[in-house]
Formats: sequence, C-alpha cells, structure tokens
Amino acid sequence: MASVEPVGAADVTFDHECDVLVVGFGAAGAAAAQEAAAAGADVLVLERSSGPGGTSAQSGGELYLGGGTEVQKACGFDDTPDDMFAFLKAALGPHADEEKLRLYCDGSVEHFEWFRACGVPFKPTLFEKPGWMPYTEDGLMWLGENAWPYNTIAKPAPRGHRPATTMFAGGILMEKLIGAATAAGAVAHQDTVATNLVVEDGRVVGVVARKFSDRVVYRARRGVVLTTGGFVDNEDMLADHAPILLGHDKVSDGTSDGSGIKIATAAGAATRRMASVEIALTANPAVICRGMLVDGLGQRFINEDVYPGLFSHKAVQHRTGPFWAIIDEAGYEDIDEADMWGVRPVHAGETATELAESLGLPPGALEATIETYNRHAEQGEDPYFHKDAKWLRPLKGPFAAIDPRDGFFGAGRMGAGTGAGGFTLGGLHTTVDGEVLNNSGERITGLYAAGRTASGIHGEGYISGTSLGDGTFFGRRAGRKAAGG
Amino acid sequence: MASVEPVGAADVTFDHECDVLVVGFGAAGAAAAQEAAAAGADVLVLERSSGPGGTSAQSGGELYLGGGTEVQKACGFDDTPDDMFAFLKAALGPHADEEKLRLYCDGSVEHFEWFRACGVPFKPTLFEKPGWMPYTEDGLMWLGENAWPYNTIAKPAPRGHRPATTMFAGGILMEKLIGAATAAGAVAHQDTVATNLVVEDGRVVGVVARKFSDRVVYRARRGVVLTTGGFVDNEDMLADHAPILLGHDKVSDGTSDGSGIKIATAAGAATRRMASVEIALTANPAVICRGMLVDGLGQRFINEDVYPGLFSHKAVQHRTGPFWAIIDEAGYEDIDEADMWGVRPVHAGETATELAESLGLPPGALEATIETYNRHAEQGEDPYFHKDAKWLRPLKGPFAAIDPRDGFFGAGRMGAGTGAGGFTLGGLHTTVDGEVLNNSGERITGLYAAGRTASGIHGEGYISGTSLGDGTFFGRRAGRKAAGG
Repeated sequence: MASVEPVGAADVTFDHECDVLVVGFGAAGAAAAQEAAAAGADVLVLERSSGPGGTSAQSGGELYLGGGTEVQKACGFDDTPDDMFAFLKAALGPHADEEKLRLYCDGSVEHFEWFRACGVPFKPTLFEKPGWMPYTEDGLMWLGENAWPYNTIAKPAPRGHRPATTMFAGGILMEKLIGAATAAGAVAHQDTVATNLVVEDGRVVGVVARKFSDRVVYRARRGVVLTTGGFVDNEDMLADHAPILLGHDKVSDGTSDGSGIKIATAAGAATRRMASVEIALTANPAVICRGMLVDGLGQRFINEDVYPGLFSHKAVQHRTGPFWAIIDEAGYEDIDEADMWGVRPVHAGETATELAESLGLPPGALEATIETYNRHAEQGEDPYFHKDAKWLRPLKGPFAAIDPRDGFFGAGRMGAGTGAGGFTLGGLHTTVDGEVLNNSGERITGLYAAGRTASGIHGEGYISGTSLGDGTFFGRRAGRKAAGG
Repeated sequence: MASVEPVGAADVTFDHECDVLVVGFGAAGAAAAQEAAAAGADVLVLERSSGPGGTSAQSGGELYLGGGTEVQKACGFDDTPDDMFAFLKAALGPHADEEKLRLYCDGSVEHFEWFRACGVPFKPTLFEKPGWMPYTEDGLMWLGENAWPYNTIAKPAPRGHRPATTMFAGGILMEKLIGAATAAGAVAHQDTVATNLVVEDGRVVGVVARKFSDRVVYRARRGVVLTTGGFVDNEDMLADHAPILLGHDKVSDGTSDGSGIKIATAAGAATRRMASVEIALTANPAVICRGMLVDGLGQRFINEDVYPGLFSHKAVQHRTGPFWAIIDEAGYEDIDEADMWGVRPVHAGETATELAESLGLPPGALEATIETYNRHAEQGEDPYFHKDAKWLRPLKGPFAAIDPRDGFFGAGRMGAGTGAGGFTLGGLHTTVDGEVLNNSGERITGLYAAGRTASGIHGEGYISGTSLGDGTFFGRRAGRKAAGG
C-alpha cells in the first residue's frame, strides 16, 4: 500500500499554485469549482481520469429536489420544504443528519434554479409509473413519497428530478456542470491523482499528486476541497468499514477507491458512518408492484410499491435470501413489455405448492403467505405492510417467480453482474460548509470535502438523487467557504 | 470537546517513565501488563477509576475457550481447534477476522491454562440449561454450538467457560488477573486518565494524562498499550459510528467513552468495523426455547434455541419490533421458577386471536404463524429454522406473551433499563500482535491496542465470552510484543 500520510510543506517544491484546489471533477467537485470560481477564486481541479465526470457522469442523473420547484408546480404539485424534510428524515433514517437535511430542504428550490442556470434542462412533465428512472424525457418522478409509511408522515409529492433525456441522464448533467465550472473560470488538470495532503503549521496548504509517473505538487492558498467519491472500489476499505458490499456489484466508474478519505484521515480527519451504504437489487419495480416480494423463507417483508431502493435495502441488509417476485398470469400480462427489460421468469408452477417446490421454499410457507395476502387483498387491504389498494388483487395460479437480481443494464445477472450493487455513503466528518473536522471536533484549517468523500444527509436509508443532490448542494457550500479562505 | 490531538515530546516534561505503559486496567490491560512484566519490562498501568477492573469486572466473566480444555475433557467433550474455528467463523460472521480467529482457536487451550496459572478457578462441570450464564458454580455451558445451523457446520461442544462462582464472575476474574499482573511487577496509577499521546519523530513515546486537576506526563521507552474499552458511553461516537446503539442500555462501567480510540485516530491510527456491536435483549432463553419468538408482524424469524445473543441481534438489528415470546400453559409450567427471574407475562388470551388482538398484531398473522409451527411440530420438524426436536411441541391455548426485553438484573425493563443493551466491537486496526496500523497500513511505532479499543475477531456476530476472550488473548500478545520494544 502506498503511503497516504501527509507531507510537510518544507519537504516539497510546489509546481502549481491556486486559491482553491478541488480534487475530483464529478458532481460535487464541479459544484465546488463553479461556486469557488464564481466567488472570484483562482480554481484548479484535479481529475485522475482522462476526462471529467467521474461516477456522476455514469449515473442516472437523478436529483432529489423539492419544496416547490418549477417542475413540481408545472406538474400540479404543491410541495413544501417541511414535507420534503419529513419524508427524507424518515426515508434516509434512522439517524439522518438533521442539520444538513434541514439546509438541504430549505435550499432545494434555489438549488434547482442553480442547476437550470448551469444549463441543465428539465422537462416539466411527470413519469407516472413505478420505476428506477424514466425511459422517457419526463423531468419528474415518484421515489416512494406516496408509499406507506411515508405517505402518513408527509404530504406526498414526487421529488425525483431528472435532466431531459431518455434513461441515463448523468452524462448530460455532468456536461452542463463541468461547462458551468469551466465558464466560471475553473481549470482542470486531467490524469492527475492526489496521493497526499501537504500540511504546514497544522493547516492543509496543498496536495502531492501523480500524473502518470511524475510527481506534481500543488499549493492551495485558500483551501483544498476533496470530492474524490466513496470507497466501493477499495476492497480493503470495504472489509474494514462496509463489508456488506463485498462481493456485490459496484455502482462506480472504477475510481471510487477512497483516496480522498484516506489522505484526510491520515492527516487526522474524523469519519462518520463508514458502514452506511446504498445497495440495490436491479429488479424492475413495475414487476414487483404487480406481485408479491418474498424472502428465502417465503415471507413477505415490505410493501412492494415502496421506492425500489428501500425494498432492496431491506432485503439485502436484513433478510435471508434468495428473494423472489411472485407474480400471476393477470399481473404478468398487465406489465408493459418495455418495462420487462427482457427479464423472463426462471420458475413457474400451476399452483403455489408447485412453484414453492421449484424454489426450494419451506413446505407450506409460500402457500400460507399467498393465502394471507389474498384474503386481505379481497378486502382491498394489506394490514401487514399497507401496500396501496391500487396494486392489491388476489393472486391466482398459474404463478411465476422472477429473481429480483435480474434487472436492467447488465448490472443485473442478465449481464455480467451479481444483480445487487451499490456504493458507500460514509466518509469524512464535515460541517454544513464542508469544513473537515478532526477527532477533537475542531476544523482542519484549509481542508474541505463534499460528495461521497464526506458523510452527508444520510442515516441508514437511501433514495435516488440524494447523493448527486447532497454532493452538489454541499459541494457548492464547500466551494464558497473555501473561496472565502 | 477537549483536544485529543497528539503532543510533541519536545513540548512536555515527563513526570514518570517506564518500559511499557498500559492504559486501562480491565481484562485486556491486565493481560498485557502481566505478560509485559513477566517478559522483564518495567510496567506502569494507568486506570481512570479509583480501582482496577473496568467493565470486565462487572461482566458475567464468561470466556469463550475450547479446542480441548481440561474442563471440556472432564465434562466428556472431545473438542478441536478446527471445530472451534468453524463455529466462531460462522457465529461471529459474516466477515470474522480469520487470521486473528485462527490464532485464537489454536492458542485457546494454552490461554485457558494461563487463566488457571493466574489463579482463576474453574469447576469442571456442565450447566445444561439454556441460559445467558449459569446460576450455579458450573464451569462450562453451551453458547449455541448445538443449535442450527452451527451444529451442521462444526461438531458441537460447549465452550462457554466461567470462573467458579454464582452469576456474575467478572469480579473474581478481574481479581485474579489484576493479582497476576501485580505479582509479575506491574504497578498501577489509579484515578489517572490518558488524554493525549506523546509523539517524537513519528513514534509514540508516552501519554499525557490527567489525575484529578493535575496534568501528569508519562514516558514509555518501549511502547504504549491502549486497553481503554469501547465507546458505548460516548453518544457522539455512537451517532457517528454505531447509531443502532443510541437509546439502548449500555453494557459498561460508564467509562467506555472511546478515549483510547480517539487519541490514537488523532495520531493517525486507522479503525475497523466501527459499526459492529453486540446487542442483547434480556429475555430468558429458558422461556424463549419453550415457546415461539415473533416480531411485530407476528412472524417467526429464528430458531428459538439459538444462543440468545444471536436471536437478540437478529431481532434488534434486522426486524421490526415489538418482539414477543409466545408461550402456552404447558410450556409455562415447564419452566423452573428460578429461570423466570420474576418475569411475568404482560398479555394473555384464551386463543391466538385473542392474544394477537391484545398485542396489536396484524389480523390473522399470529394465528397463521402458530398454525404453521404446530403443523410441523407435530411431525417433530421445523423446516423454517430447524429448532431442535426436543423443544418442538404444538402450542395450545390459552397463550401468554412475554416481552423479551423483560429480563435479568435490572438491565431489563423490570429495572431501570430499556431491556436491550450492548457494547461496541469496532476499534483500532491492529496486527495479531496488537500493533496499531495507520491509514497507509504501516505500524505506528510504539503504539499497541487490545480489547474493545481494537477491532478483534468479530465480524457482524457476537457470542458471550469472545470479548473477554479476545481481549485477554490479544492483550497478552500486545504486552509481549511491547515488552520486546
């Protein structure tokens, strides 16, 4: 393992100098760079890859925004920051960071306008189906706000905002954010990976970097902002801090090796919630909603109409697999072919018993679960999990079972992956302005972090768009603060 | 928050000097001090309380040992290190530390003999009942080795070793270990809390401590061994690293504030698995075995004859409460009064439906669970969870429900507590010799750790006696290594 320990300023010769040095040109880095440059700072951005964008550019590009954005209003929703806060506190909890979350919700409309000012296009139309992301250009979607218990906690409004494109919107999002940062004056150095912090009198004053085989040293007069992503690509760090992700797919561009977290902790930075992760089964929610999701004991464990990240999280983190979406003929026929993504059932049976035998479930388990589900569904009720009545209907044989790991875009088992994948949510302990704290709770002067290099608004839970969301939101705050020096 | 940052040797004046400075006089500290002193080192031990023993002295004193100890042999069990390893790898997993675990199992018989040499008495008789700990003087008990799935993974042998006394054996254990450390020449300074490490040229050379209002500085010529316990008493650290323990009871003497972890991470030490915890419902296993354990949805979730820490862990970490032990009249009458600890059912009903209504379970849920359980129990089977046939019997009304938080020693709701409590398992990243590593994977020269200040053999799981067990085992190794300088 190469040394990540900090280097003294007296021991290096600086090759480049700037006011604010942003390390990593993904969403958080672009946001920090744009704000810092707009505030008048001379900004350099180091990017280890040959082009900018990072993991953000490969993502779905969803942004969790609300409180009354123009897109929400155009779609007829009357949202408030308080409802957004109440929803996220529950859905990202337990133990969401309420201070960061409050700022995030109160500033969400302004943050949406910032995206628009950066040139990110949003189509003011609602995608109504259950799904991970629209396959249309619709700019707004539900992310579980209308599912129990969240619909009892806050007035439901869709808050999944998505740049206007079909499927993966991360590319267009990053094109615009990088364009905005560059237009504001930020200059990028590509192929340059930061390897150590440079310190002087207890203050961070720069970084040592490597460009191919050369060592390049940067001085940052006002501050260094670390936005290098999380650590899902670092197997040692996963084993140390988030072993649940070992053996699963990585939602990453391959550079989420935790380097920013490591060079900062080596310099005395504190971390928070390093075990928190997002993990998703690639199942199609349009399938799951129409049937019943059971675990390896044939038991249901959640309302199937919840945000798919939450049923995935509950399954992988808390239940014993394998998992099965049980669907009957009427349900299967009700699914649009476009929603199937080519997935086909791997088991079928004329009766529940026949299907259960094929799945290797304990005798009688699936039968009892279906019987109970049907008895209540006939009354339009789901007293266990409160699935919405519009999805409730007794299931009648023949039945099929779909593996919820069989899902989209080759991350599922239909492609090369394991069908369950995610990324890390824990990271450096920062203030709401991205200032990195040490183990005594004091600022490490000159050091900032945002995005998945930091611990953000998340507790145990995760909702699509909250990582790009808090990464850009607190990235902007970090950039402004660093520019102020 | 007081500063925990390291202090330079040039900025202090040393008040005391020794070869090996052990910080904390609990089980790990006593083991380290005894070995270091026995190896010829001049050993000082700092203890923040007015007397030694720490959390260890207030514990049950159980030691998870095996591989063929004299006590096991006397009770007629033919155990091997391989079976012990296979059991612990599964029960402490997933992701138990296999390197440390292998050493721990291979060295377990020798470690047992070391306890005997320290004067710890063991009575070579087996306590046969399910329980958290014997209320007799029996020296050996089962800790789930004979329950599914562990009985399919390794040849079952009881490995819960307990010093000869009734109930809490931590007191006698610590009396003997402290006696042995003192006899070997270790000298304790009481009322002295370490607040910062002293460093010199990248090496740890001592600690700054506080004794009442005085600052006292210690130089350690060969090494500092941190054995200050975990961080369950530090609410900020719990929020940052192990929020699941927030709001639960603390298994601690009140000094598990994470101070050793913090002063080391401030000096650049790396941590591992800070989110890993032990958490226990105080339920009496003798009650649980005879009935059925269900969650807030009326679903069973584990074989009730498993080690009680494991059903607790599964419940609190992975299920939705409240939890209920459902028991019928025949089961209730089968329990020895001594095993009830004064606990009485809080709900009862002539039928499952009546009881379920009283418990507020979803309609039909408990009835279905009991019907399924009974149907299989009539055949002597439990195809869901493989509870041992000796505990399987159809349950017949009238039924009672006991809250598994109602348990022993006032830690349960019968006393002042919440009925679920635990402690932290994560800590400093150490080698098998207790050497603390930095974020680059290199040794921090002069710094050692053991006990709950370090991450030991544990993955996600926990078994009674593995914390005192690995704390003393790796405490001894750290003491020897530090003495060698």
